[in-house]
Amino acid sequence: MKNKPIGVFDSGLGGLTVVKALKEILPNESILYFGDTARLPYGVKSRDLIIQYSMQIANFLIKNDAKMIIVACNTATAMALEVLKNNFKDIPIIGVIEPGSIQASLDSKSKKIGVIGTVATINSKAYDIALNLVDKEIQVFSKECPLFVPFVEEGMVEGEAINLIVEHYLSSFKNNIDTMILGCTHYPLLKPVIKDFVKDINLVDSASAIATHAKSILIKKSLMSEVVNSNELECFVTDLPRKFEKLGEIFLGETIKQPQLIDDF
Amino acid sequence: MKNKPIGVFDSGLGGLTVVKALKEILPNESILYFGDTARLPYGVKSRDLIIQYSMQIANFLIKNDAKMIIVACNTATAMALEVLKNNFKDIPIIGVIEPGSIQASLDSKSKKIGVIGTVATINSKAYDIALNLVDKEIQVFSKECPLFVPFVEEGMVEGEAINLIVEHYLSSFKNNIDTMILGCTHYPLLKPVIKDFVKDINLVDSASAIATHAKSILIKKSLMSEVVNSNELECFVTDLPRKFEKLGEIFLGETIKQPQLIDDF
Repeated sequence: MKNKPIGVFDSGLGGLTVVKALKEILPNESILYFGDTARLPYGVKSRDLIIQYSMQIANFLIKNDAKMIIVACNTATAMALEVLKNNFKDIPIIGVIEPGSIQASLDSKSKKIGVIGTVATINSKAYDIALNLVDKEIQVFSKECPLFVPFVEEGMVEGEAINLIVEHYLSSFKNNIDTMILGCTHYPLLKPVIKDFVKDINLVDSASAIATHAKSILIKKSLMSEVVNSNELECFVTDLPRKFEKLGEIFLGETIKQPQLIDDF
Repeated sequence: MKNKPIGVFDSGLGGLTVVKALKEILPNESILYFGDTARLPYGVKSRDLIIQYSMQIANFLIKNDAKMIIVACNTATAMALEVLKNNFKDIPIIGVIEPGSIQASLDSKSKKIGVIGTVATINSKAYDIALNLVDKEIQVFSKECPLFVPFVEEGMVEGEAINLIVEHYLSSFKNNIDTMILGCTHYPLLKPVIKDFVKDINLVDSASAIATHAKSILIKKSLMSEVVNSNELECFVTDLPRKFEKLGEIFLGETIKQPQLIDDF
Protein backbone atom coordinates (compact mmCIF):
# COMPACT_ATOMS: atom_id res chain seq x y z
CA MET A 1 0.00 0.00 0.00
CA LYS A 2 2.75 2.46 1.06
CA ASN A 3 4.37 2.62 -2.34
CA LYS A 4 1.17 3.19 -4.26
CA PRO A 5 0.55 6.62 -5.78
CA ILE A 6 -1.37 9.59 -4.39
CA GLY A 7 -4.39 10.48 -6.58
CA VAL A 8 -4.98 14.18 -7.21
CA PHE A 9 -7.82 15.68 -9.23
CA ASP A 10 -9.06 19.02 -10.47
CA SER A 11 -11.38 20.28 -13.20
CA GLY A 12 -8.37 21.11 -15.34
CA LEU A 13 -4.86 22.45 -14.97
CA GLY A 14 -5.14 24.40 -11.71
CA GLY A 15 -4.56 21.40 -9.46
CA LEU A 16 -1.05 21.13 -10.85
CA THR A 17 -0.12 23.93 -8.43
CA VAL A 18 -0.95 21.38 -5.70
CA VAL A 19 1.14 18.72 -7.47
CA LYS A 20 4.05 21.18 -7.56
CA ALA A 21 3.78 21.71 -3.80
CA LEU A 22 3.47 17.95 -3.19
CA LYS A 23 6.58 17.20 -5.27
CA GLU A 24 8.56 19.67 -3.20
CA ILE A 25 7.72 18.30 0.23
CA LEU A 26 7.08 14.63 -0.67
CA PRO A 27 9.82 13.72 -3.17
CA ASN A 28 9.36 9.98 -2.66
CA GLU A 29 5.69 9.91 -3.63
CA SER A 30 4.31 9.03 -7.05
CA ILE A 31 1.27 10.95 -8.22
CA LEU A 32 -1.70 10.21 -10.48
CA TYR A 33 -3.24 13.45 -11.68
CA PHE A 34 -6.69 13.63 -13.22
CA GLY A 35 -7.75 16.84 -15.02
CA ASP A 36 -11.39 16.84 -16.14
CA THR A 37 -10.67 19.06 -19.14
CA ALA A 38 -13.80 18.00 -21.07
CA ARG A 39 -16.07 19.32 -18.34
CA LEU A 40 -14.24 22.34 -16.94
CA PRO A 41 -14.91 24.85 -15.53
CA TYR A 42 -16.56 23.41 -12.41
CA GLY A 43 -16.98 26.87 -10.84
CA VAL A 44 -20.17 27.66 -12.77
CA LYS A 45 -21.90 24.27 -12.38
CA SER A 46 -24.52 22.89 -9.97
CA ARG A 47 -23.77 20.84 -6.86
CA ASP A 48 -25.40 17.71 -8.36
CA LEU A 49 -23.18 17.74 -11.44
CA ILE A 50 -20.00 18.38 -9.47
CA ILE A 51 -20.80 15.48 -7.11
CA GLN A 52 -21.46 13.19 -10.10
CA TYR A 53 -18.18 14.16 -11.79
CA SER A 54 -16.14 13.91 -8.57
CA MET A 55 -17.51 10.42 -7.81
CA GLN A 56 -16.56 9.20 -11.31
CA ILE A 57 -13.03 10.54 -10.96
CA ALA A 58 -12.50 9.20 -7.42
CA ASN A 59 -13.63 5.76 -8.67
CA PHE A 60 -11.15 5.98 -11.53
CA LEU A 61 -8.26 6.95 -9.24
CA ILE A 62 -9.06 4.16 -6.76
CA LYS A 63 -9.24 1.59 -9.57
CA ASN A 64 -5.82 2.85 -10.60
CA ASP A 65 -4.43 2.12 -7.12
CA ALA A 66 -4.48 5.51 -5.40
CA LYS A 67 -3.67 5.15 -1.67
CA MET A 68 -5.08 8.61 -0.90
CA ILE A 69 -7.11 11.17 -2.82
CA ILE A 70 -6.49 14.91 -2.80
CA VAL A 71 -9.32 17.04 -4.15
CA ALA A 72 -7.16 19.81 -5.63
CA CYS A 73 -10.13 21.91 -6.68
CA ASN A 74 -11.84 24.32 -4.34
CA THR A 75 -15.23 23.97 -6.05
CA ALA A 76 -15.17 20.15 -5.93
CA THR A 77 -14.02 20.30 -2.29
CA ALA A 78 -16.86 22.69 -1.42
CA MET A 79 -19.51 20.64 -3.22
CA ALA A 80 -18.41 17.01 -3.07
CA LEU A 81 -15.80 16.28 -0.34
CA GLU A 82 -18.27 15.00 2.25
CA VAL A 83 -20.01 12.76 -0.30
CA LEU A 84 -16.67 11.34 -1.42
CA LYS A 85 -15.60 10.64 2.18
CA ASN A 86 -18.89 8.85 2.87
CA ASN A 87 -18.62 6.73 -0.27
CA PHE A 88 -14.95 5.76 -0.13
CA LYS A 89 -14.08 4.99 3.47
CA ASP A 90 -11.04 2.78 2.86
CA ILE A 91 -8.57 5.51 1.94
CA PRO A 92 -8.01 9.05 3.19
CA ILE A 93 -9.64 11.77 1.07
CA ILE A 94 -8.70 15.39 1.73
CA GLY A 95 -9.71 18.70 0.17
CA VAL A 96 -8.11 22.13 -0.14
CA ILE A 97 -10.51 24.09 2.03
CA GLU A 98 -9.71 22.88 5.56
CA PRO A 99 -5.89 23.17 5.34
CA GLY A 100 -6.18 26.64 3.76
CA SER A 101 -8.55 27.75 6.51
CA ILE A 102 -6.27 26.49 9.29
CA GLN A 103 -3.27 28.23 7.72
CA ALA A 104 -5.22 31.49 7.38
CA SER A 105 -6.34 31.37 11.02
CA LEU A 106 -2.70 30.95 12.07
CA ASP A 107 -1.61 33.89 9.89
CA SER A 108 -4.36 36.32 10.88
CA LYS A 109 -4.00 38.61 13.89
CA SER A 110 -7.14 40.69 13.35
CA LYS A 111 -9.31 37.57 12.81
CA LYS A 112 -10.68 39.30 9.73
CA ILE A 113 -10.03 37.01 6.78
CA GLY A 114 -10.86 37.46 3.10
CA VAL A 115 -11.67 34.59 0.74
CA ILE A 116 -11.69 34.81 -3.05
CA GLY A 117 -12.87 32.02 -5.36
CA THR A 118 -15.23 30.92 -8.12
CA VAL A 119 -18.97 31.63 -7.98
CA ALA A 120 -19.70 28.05 -6.88
CA THR A 121 -17.05 28.05 -4.12
CA ILE A 122 -18.12 31.41 -2.69
CA ASN A 123 -21.85 30.62 -2.89
CA SER A 124 -21.29 27.32 -1.07
CA LYS A 125 -19.98 29.24 1.97
CA ALA A 126 -17.59 26.31 2.53
CA TYR A 127 -14.74 28.60 3.66
CA ASP A 128 -17.02 30.52 6.03
CA ILE A 129 -17.99 27.23 7.67
CA ALA A 130 -14.44 25.86 7.77
CA LEU A 131 -12.96 29.09 9.19
CA ASN A 132 -15.63 29.30 11.88
CA LEU A 133 -15.00 25.68 12.84
CA VAL A 134 -11.37 26.66 13.48
CA ASP A 135 -12.28 29.81 15.41
CA LYS A 136 -15.77 31.15 15.98
CA GLU A 137 -14.50 34.70 16.27
CA ILE A 138 -13.16 34.87 12.73
CA GLN A 139 -15.04 37.30 10.48
CA VAL A 140 -15.09 36.18 6.85
CA PHE A 141 -15.26 38.60 3.90
CA SER A 142 -15.73 36.76 0.63
CA LYS A 143 -15.80 37.73 -3.03
CA GLU A 144 -16.34 35.75 -6.20
CA CYS A 145 -13.84 36.58 -8.94
CA PRO A 146 -15.06 34.79 -12.10
CA LEU A 147 -12.68 36.54 -14.51
CA PHE A 148 -9.48 35.44 -12.74
CA VAL A 149 -9.54 31.89 -14.17
CA PRO A 150 -9.99 32.98 -17.82
CA PHE A 151 -7.20 35.56 -17.41
CA VAL A 152 -4.83 32.88 -16.05
CA GLU A 153 -5.80 30.48 -18.83
CA GLU A 154 -5.15 33.23 -21.39
CA GLY A 155 -1.71 33.73 -19.81
CA MET A 156 -2.54 37.37 -18.97
CA VAL A 157 -1.14 37.29 -15.44
CA GLU A 158 0.41 40.75 -15.62
CA GLY A 159 -0.33 44.08 -17.31
CA GLU A 160 -2.88 46.85 -17.18
CA ALA A 161 -5.99 44.73 -17.88
CA ILE A 162 -5.44 42.21 -15.08
CA ASN A 163 -4.49 45.08 -12.74
CA LEU A 164 -7.89 46.69 -13.42
CA ILE A 165 -9.68 43.40 -12.81
CA VAL A 166 -7.76 42.89 -9.54
CA GLU A 167 -8.78 46.39 -8.47
CA HIS A 168 -12.39 45.73 -9.53
CA TYR A 169 -12.68 42.61 -7.38
CA LEU A 170 -10.42 43.40 -4.43
CA SER A 171 -10.92 47.10 -3.63
CA SER A 172 -13.46 46.37 -0.92
CA PHE A 173 -10.93 44.20 0.97
CA LYS A 174 -8.44 47.00 1.58
CA ASN A 175 -8.24 48.06 5.24
CA ASN A 176 -10.79 45.37 6.14
CA ILE A 177 -8.72 42.21 6.46
CA ASP A 178 -5.16 41.16 7.28
CA THR A 179 -5.20 37.75 5.54
CA MET A 180 -6.67 36.52 2.26
CA ILE A 181 -7.19 32.94 1.10
CA LEU A 182 -6.60 32.35 -2.60
CA GLY A 183 -9.53 29.93 -2.80
CA CYS A 184 -8.95 28.58 -6.31
CA THR A 185 -5.98 26.58 -7.56
CA HIS A 186 -5.55 28.93 -10.52
CA TYR A 187 -4.96 31.95 -8.31
CA PRO A 188 -1.38 31.25 -7.20
CA LEU A 189 -0.36 32.37 -10.70
CA LEU A 190 -1.90 35.79 -9.94
CA LYS A 191 -0.10 36.10 -6.58
CA PRO A 192 2.33 38.82 -7.81
CA VAL A 193 -0.40 41.15 -9.17
CA ILE A 194 -2.70 40.51 -6.21
CA LYS A 195 0.15 41.12 -3.72
CA ASP A 196 1.03 44.30 -5.57
CA PHE A 197 -2.51 45.59 -5.06
CA VAL A 198 -3.34 44.39 -1.53
CA LYS A 199 0.19 45.19 -0.19
CA ASP A 200 0.30 44.25 3.51
CA ILE A 201 -2.39 41.57 3.44
CA ASN A 202 -1.02 38.00 3.94
CA LEU A 203 -1.91 35.73 1.04
CA VAL A 204 -2.68 32.09 1.83
CA ASP A 205 -2.05 29.81 -1.09
CA SER A 206 -4.00 26.63 -0.43
CA ALA A 207 -1.66 24.54 -2.60
CA SER A 208 1.15 24.69 -0.01
CA ALA A 209 -1.29 24.24 2.87
CA ILE A 210 -2.80 21.04 1.47
CA ALA A 211 0.59 19.56 0.62
CA THR A 212 1.68 19.97 4.25
CA HIS A 213 -1.61 18.48 5.41
CA ALA A 214 -1.23 15.52 3.03
CA LYS A 215 2.21 14.79 4.45
CA SER A 216 0.89 14.75 8.01
CA ILE A 217 -1.91 12.34 7.05
CA LEU A 218 0.53 10.00 5.28
CA ILE A 219 2.76 9.95 8.39
CA LYS A 220 -0.20 9.38 10.73
CA LYS A 221 -1.55 6.50 8.64
CA SER A 222 1.92 5.00 7.97
CA LEU A 223 1.42 5.49 4.26
CA MET A 224 4.66 7.31 3.36
CA SER A 225 6.38 5.79 0.32
CA GLU A 226 9.64 3.95 0.91
CA VAL A 227 10.83 4.29 -2.68
CA VAL A 228 13.49 7.01 -2.61
CA ASN A 229 12.92 9.79 -5.14
CA SER A 230 10.33 7.87 -7.12
CA ASN A 231 8.35 11.06 -7.72
CA GLU A 232 6.60 9.93 -10.90
CA LEU A 233 3.73 11.93 -12.27
CA GLU A 234 1.15 10.26 -14.51
CA CYS A 235 -1.61 12.45 -15.91
CA PHE A 236 -5.09 11.64 -17.25
CA VAL A 237 -7.42 14.09 -18.98
CA THR A 238 -10.91 13.90 -20.50
CA ASP A 239 -10.14 16.13 -23.51
CA LEU A 240 -7.26 17.82 -25.36
CA PRO A 241 -4.20 16.01 -23.93
CA ARG A 242 -1.70 18.02 -25.99
CA LYS A 243 -3.07 21.35 -24.78
CA PHE A 244 -2.84 20.07 -21.20
CA GLU A 245 0.76 19.01 -21.76
CA LYS A 246 1.67 22.42 -23.17
CA LEU A 247 -0.12 24.65 -20.64
CA GLY A 248 0.57 22.30 -17.72
CA GLU A 249 4.20 23.39 -17.72
CA ILE A 250 3.15 26.90 -16.61
CA PHE A 251 1.36 25.50 -13.56
CA LEU A 252 3.87 22.78 -12.69
CA GLY A 253 7.04 24.68 -13.47
CA GLU A 254 8.50 21.68 -15.35
CA THR A 255 7.68 19.60 -18.43
CA ILE A 256 4.87 17.04 -18.31
CA LYS A 257 4.79 13.60 -19.88
CA GLN A 258 1.87 13.54 -22.37
CA PRO A 259 -1.31 12.63 -20.48
CA GLN A 260 -3.60 9.73 -21.34
CA LEU A 261 -7.01 10.61 -22.77
CA ILE A 262 -9.90 9.07 -20.84
CA ASP A 263 -12.97 9.39 -23.05
CA ASP A 264 -15.43 6.85 -21.68
CA PHE A 265 -16.89 8.93 -18.85
CA MET B 1 -45.23 19.91 -40.29
CA LYS B 2 -45.56 23.66 -41.00
CA ASN B 3 -46.76 24.56 -37.54
CA LYS B 4 -44.10 22.63 -35.69
CA PRO B 5 -41.36 24.58 -33.90
CA ILE B 6 -37.89 25.57 -35.05
CA GLY B 7 -35.16 23.98 -32.93
CA VAL B 8 -32.24 26.23 -31.96
CA PHE B 9 -29.22 25.19 -29.93
CA ASP B 10 -26.09 26.67 -28.42
CA SER B 11 -23.61 25.77 -25.70
CA GLY B 12 -25.34 28.20 -23.36
CA LEU B 13 -27.00 31.58 -23.46
CA GLY B 14 -25.38 33.13 -26.53
CA GLY B 15 -27.76 31.55 -29.02
CA LEU B 16 -30.58 33.60 -27.51
CA THR B 17 -29.27 36.50 -29.63
CA VAL B 18 -30.29 34.34 -32.62
CA VAL B 19 -33.69 33.65 -31.02
CA LYS B 20 -34.18 37.40 -30.59
CA ALA B 21 -33.48 37.98 -34.29
CA LEU B 22 -35.79 35.08 -35.26
CA LYS B 23 -38.64 36.42 -33.14
CA GLU B 24 -38.35 39.76 -34.90
CA ILE B 25 -38.56 38.53 -38.46
CA LEU B 26 -40.60 35.34 -37.94
CA PRO B 27 -43.32 36.29 -35.42
CA ASN B 28 -45.48 33.28 -36.32
CA GLU B 29 -42.85 30.66 -35.50
CA SER B 30 -42.55 28.76 -32.23
CA ILE B 31 -39.06 27.99 -31.01
CA LEU B 32 -37.46 25.22 -28.96
CA TYR B 33 -34.17 26.43 -27.51
CA PHE B 34 -31.57 24.07 -26.11
CA GLY B 35 -28.68 25.53 -24.04
CA ASP B 36 -26.05 22.96 -23.08
CA THR B 37 -25.17 24.78 -19.86
CA ALA B 38 -23.66 21.69 -18.17
CA ARG B 39 -21.00 21.40 -20.84
CA LEU B 40 -20.26 24.97 -21.88
CA PRO B 41 -18.01 26.49 -23.06
CA TYR B 42 -17.66 24.62 -26.36
CA GLY B 43 -14.95 27.01 -27.62
CA VAL B 44 -12.14 25.27 -25.74
CA LYS B 45 -13.14 21.66 -26.52
CA SER B 46 -12.07 19.11 -29.14
CA ARG B 47 -13.91 18.43 -32.41
CA ASP B 48 -14.86 14.88 -31.29
CA LEU B 49 -16.58 16.11 -28.14
CA ILE B 50 -18.44 18.92 -29.91
CA ILE B 51 -19.72 16.49 -32.56
CA GLN B 52 -20.89 14.08 -29.84
CA TYR B 53 -22.72 16.84 -27.94
CA SER B 54 -24.27 18.35 -31.09
CA MET B 55 -25.59 14.94 -32.23
CA GLN B 56 -27.23 14.36 -28.83
CA ILE B 57 -28.91 17.77 -28.90
CA ALA B 58 -30.10 17.48 -32.53
CA ASN B 59 -31.62 14.08 -31.67
CA PHE B 60 -33.40 15.64 -28.72
CA LEU B 61 -34.80 18.52 -30.77
CA ILE B 62 -36.00 16.20 -33.54
CA LYS B 63 -37.70 13.92 -30.99
CA ASN B 64 -39.40 17.06 -29.71
CA ASP B 65 -40.78 17.79 -33.17
CA ALA B 66 -38.41 20.40 -34.59
CA LYS B 67 -39.11 21.05 -38.29
CA MET B 68 -35.72 22.71 -38.78
CA ILE B 69 -32.55 23.02 -36.70
CA ILE B 70 -30.47 26.15 -36.33
CA VAL B 71 -26.99 25.67 -34.90
CA ALA B 72 -26.77 29.01 -33.09
CA CYS B 73 -23.20 28.44 -31.95
CA ASN B 74 -20.23 29.26 -34.12
CA THR B 75 -18.04 26.57 -32.58
CA ALA B 76 -20.65 23.83 -33.07
CA THR B 77 -21.27 25.06 -36.62
CA ALA B 78 -17.55 24.98 -37.37
CA MET B 79 -17.05 21.52 -35.89
CA ALA B 80 -20.29 19.62 -36.35
CA LEU B 81 -22.62 21.11 -39.02
CA GLU B 82 -21.58 18.76 -41.82
CA VAL B 83 -21.90 15.69 -39.57
CA LEU B 84 -25.36 16.82 -38.46
CA LYS B 85 -26.49 17.37 -42.07
CA ASN B 86 -25.25 13.91 -43.05
CA ASN B 87 -27.00 12.24 -40.13
CA PHE B 88 -30.35 14.02 -40.22
CA LYS B 89 -31.40 14.39 -43.84
CA ASP B 90 -35.14 14.78 -43.31
CA ILE B 91 -35.14 18.36 -42.03
CA PRO B 92 -33.11 21.44 -42.92
CA ILE B 93 -30.14 22.12 -40.61
CA ILE B 94 -28.37 25.46 -40.87
CA GLY B 95 -25.45 27.05 -39.05
CA VAL B 96 -24.31 30.60 -38.36
CA ILE B 97 -21.14 30.63 -40.43
CA GLU B 98 -22.42 30.62 -44.02
CA PRO B 99 -25.05 33.40 -43.62
CA GLY B 100 -22.54 35.57 -41.72
CA SER B 101 -19.96 35.05 -44.45
CA ILE B 102 -22.38 35.95 -47.25
CA GLN B 103 -23.47 39.10 -45.39
CA ALA B 104 -19.84 40.12 -44.82
CA SER B 105 -18.97 39.65 -48.50
CA LEU B 106 -21.90 41.91 -49.42
CA ASP B 107 -20.79 44.58 -46.93
CA SER B 108 -17.09 44.61 -47.81
CA LYS B 109 -15.71 46.81 -50.56
CA SER B 110 -12.00 46.16 -49.96
CA LYS B 111 -12.53 42.36 -49.79
CA LYS B 112 -10.46 42.39 -46.62
CA ILE B 113 -12.59 40.87 -43.88
CA GLY B 114 -11.80 40.27 -40.21
CA VAL B 115 -13.23 37.39 -38.16
CA ILE B 116 -13.21 37.16 -34.38
CA GLY B 117 -14.30 34.11 -32.40
CA THR B 118 -13.40 31.44 -29.86
CA VAL B 119 -10.16 29.44 -30.06
CA ALA B 120 -12.01 26.44 -31.55
CA THR B 121 -13.86 28.50 -34.18
CA ILE B 122 -10.75 30.37 -35.32
CA ASN B 123 -8.54 27.24 -35.34
CA SER B 124 -11.13 25.40 -37.46
CA LYS B 125 -10.69 28.00 -40.26
CA ALA B 126 -14.41 27.52 -40.99
CA TYR B 127 -14.92 31.23 -41.77
CA ASP B 128 -11.86 31.32 -44.04
CA ILE B 129 -13.31 28.42 -46.02
CA ALA B 130 -16.85 29.84 -46.12
CA LEU B 131 -15.70 33.33 -47.16
CA ASN B 132 -13.49 31.94 -49.93
CA LEU B 133 -16.37 29.82 -51.19
CA VAL B 134 -18.37 33.04 -51.60
CA ASP B 135 -15.50 34.92 -53.24
CA LYS B 136 -11.99 33.60 -53.82
CA GLU B 137 -10.51 37.09 -53.72
CA ILE B 138 -11.51 37.77 -50.13
CA GLN B 139 -8.57 38.05 -47.74
CA VAL B 140 -9.42 36.86 -44.23
CA PHE B 141 -7.76 38.21 -41.07
CA SER B 142 -8.78 36.24 -38.01
CA LYS B 143 -8.20 36.54 -34.28
CA GLU B 144 -9.26 34.40 -31.34
CA CYS B 145 -10.66 36.43 -28.42
CA PRO B 146 -11.07 33.98 -25.51
CA LEU B 147 -11.72 36.64 -22.85
CA PHE B 148 -14.77 38.15 -24.58
CA VAL B 149 -17.17 35.38 -23.50
CA PRO B 150 -16.23 35.53 -19.78
CA PHE B 151 -16.55 39.34 -19.84
CA VAL B 152 -20.05 39.11 -21.36
CA GLU B 153 -21.06 36.43 -18.88
CA GLU B 154 -19.77 38.62 -16.03
CA GLY B 155 -21.90 41.46 -17.43
CA MET B 156 -18.80 43.64 -17.93
CA VAL B 157 -19.75 44.88 -21.39
CA GLU B 158 -18.56 48.44 -20.82
CA GLY B 159 -15.85 50.22 -18.86
CA GLU B 160 -12.10 50.55 -18.80
CA ALA B 161 -11.26 46.84 -18.44
CA ILE B 162 -13.25 45.62 -21.46
CA ASN B 163 -11.93 48.58 -23.47
CA LEU B 164 -8.38 47.40 -22.75
CA ILE B 165 -9.25 43.85 -23.76
CA VAL B 166 -10.89 45.09 -26.98
CA GLU B 167 -7.73 47.07 -27.75
CA HIS B 168 -5.55 44.05 -26.89
CA TYR B 169 -7.37 41.79 -29.34
CA LEU B 170 -8.40 44.17 -32.11
CA SER B 171 -5.50 46.62 -32.58
CA SER B 172 -4.03 44.62 -35.45
CA PHE B 173 -7.28 44.94 -37.44
CA LYS B 174 -7.22 48.73 -37.69
CA ASN B 175 -6.49 49.99 -41.22
CA ASN B 176 -6.41 46.39 -42.46
CA ILE B 177 -10.04 45.51 -43.00
CA ASP B 178 -13.37 47.23 -43.77
CA THR B 179 -15.70 44.54 -42.38
CA MET B 180 -15.56 42.33 -39.30
CA ILE B 181 -17.64 39.25 -38.51
CA LEU B 182 -18.61 38.83 -34.85
CA GLY B 183 -18.08 35.09 -35.02
CA CYS B 184 -19.55 34.14 -31.64
CA THR B 185 -23.13 34.55 -30.46
CA HIS B 186 -21.96 36.28 -27.27
CA TYR B 187 -20.28 39.09 -29.15
CA PRO B 188 -23.36 41.12 -30.18
CA LEU B 189 -23.48 42.28 -26.56
CA LEU B 190 -20.01 43.81 -27.05
CA LYS B 191 -21.00 45.58 -30.28
CA PRO B 192 -20.99 49.09 -28.71
CA VAL B 193 -17.47 48.82 -27.23
CA ILE B 194 -16.10 47.09 -30.32
CA LYS B 195 -17.68 49.71 -32.62
CA ASP B 196 -16.25 52.44 -30.45
CA PHE B 197 -12.76 51.05 -30.98
CA VAL B 198 -12.85 49.96 -34.64
CA LYS B 199 -14.84 53.07 -35.74
CA ASP B 200 -15.44 52.81 -39.51
CA ILE B 201 -15.28 49.03 -39.81
CA ASN B 202 -18.68 47.39 -40.59
CA LEU B 203 -19.65 44.84 -37.97
CA VAL B 204 -21.52 41.74 -39.14
CA ASP B 205 -23.62 40.20 -36.43
CA SER B 206 -24.30 36.63 -37.47
CA ALA B 207 -27.53 36.47 -35.44
CA SER B 208 -29.40 38.73 -37.88
CA ALA B 209 -27.81 37.04 -40.89
CA ILE B 210 -28.89 33.55 -39.85
CA ALA B 211 -32.44 34.67 -39.02
CA THR B 212 -32.84 36.06 -42.54
CA HIS B 213 -31.37 32.86 -43.98
CA ALA B 214 -33.73 30.72 -41.87
CA LYS B 215 -36.71 32.66 -43.22
CA SER B 216 -35.66 32.09 -46.83
CA ILE B 217 -35.25 28.33 -46.20
CA LEU B 218 -38.70 28.10 -44.58
CA ILE B 219 -40.26 29.86 -47.56
CA LYS B 220 -38.37 27.68 -50.05
CA LYS B 221 -39.40 24.46 -48.32
CA SER B 222 -42.99 25.64 -47.66
CA LEU B 223 -42.43 25.31 -43.95
CA MET B 224 -43.63 28.73 -42.74
CA SER B 225 -46.01 28.50 -39.80
CA GLU B 226 -49.66 29.40 -40.42
CA VAL B 227 -50.39 30.11 -36.76
CA VAL B 228 -50.53 33.89 -36.48
CA ASN B 229 -48.32 35.30 -33.71
CA SER B 230 -47.79 31.95 -32.05
CA ASN B 231 -44.20 32.88 -31.22
CA GLU B 232 -43.79 30.58 -28.23
CA LEU B 233 -40.35 29.98 -26.78
CA GLU B 234 -39.67 26.81 -24.83
CA CYS B 235 -36.20 26.39 -23.33
CA PHE B 236 -34.23 23.32 -22.22
CA VAL B 237 -30.92 23.36 -20.37
CA THR B 238 -28.54 20.71 -19.02
CA ASP B 239 -27.72 22.57 -15.77
CA LEU B 240 -28.76 25.57 -13.66
CA PRO B 241 -32.17 26.48 -15.13
CA ARG B 242 -32.72 29.42 -12.78
CA LYS B 243 -29.42 31.05 -13.73
CA PHE B 244 -30.34 30.61 -17.40
CA GLU B 245 -33.71 32.21 -16.80
CA LYS B 246 -32.13 35.17 -15.05
CA LEU B 247 -29.22 35.85 -17.42
CA GLY B 248 -31.21 34.89 -20.51
CA GLU B 249 -33.14 38.14 -20.27
CA ILE B 250 -29.95 40.09 -21.07
CA PHE B 251 -29.48 38.17 -24.32
CA LEU B 252 -33.14 37.95 -25.35
CA GLY B 253 -34.21 41.40 -24.27
CA GLU B 254 -37.38 40.01 -22.62
CA THR B 255 -38.28 37.64 -19.78
CA ILE B 256 -37.93 33.88 -20.25
CA LYS B 257 -40.27 31.17 -19.02
CA GLN B 258 -38.28 28.91 -16.68
CA PRO B 259 -36.47 26.27 -18.76
CA GLN B 260 -36.77 22.52 -18.27
CA LEU B 261 -33.72 20.74 -16.91
CA ILE B 262 -32.57 17.82 -19.09
CA ASP B 263 -30.15 15.78 -16.97
CA ASP B 264 -30.01 12.39 -18.68
CA PHE B 265 -27.42 13.23 -21.34
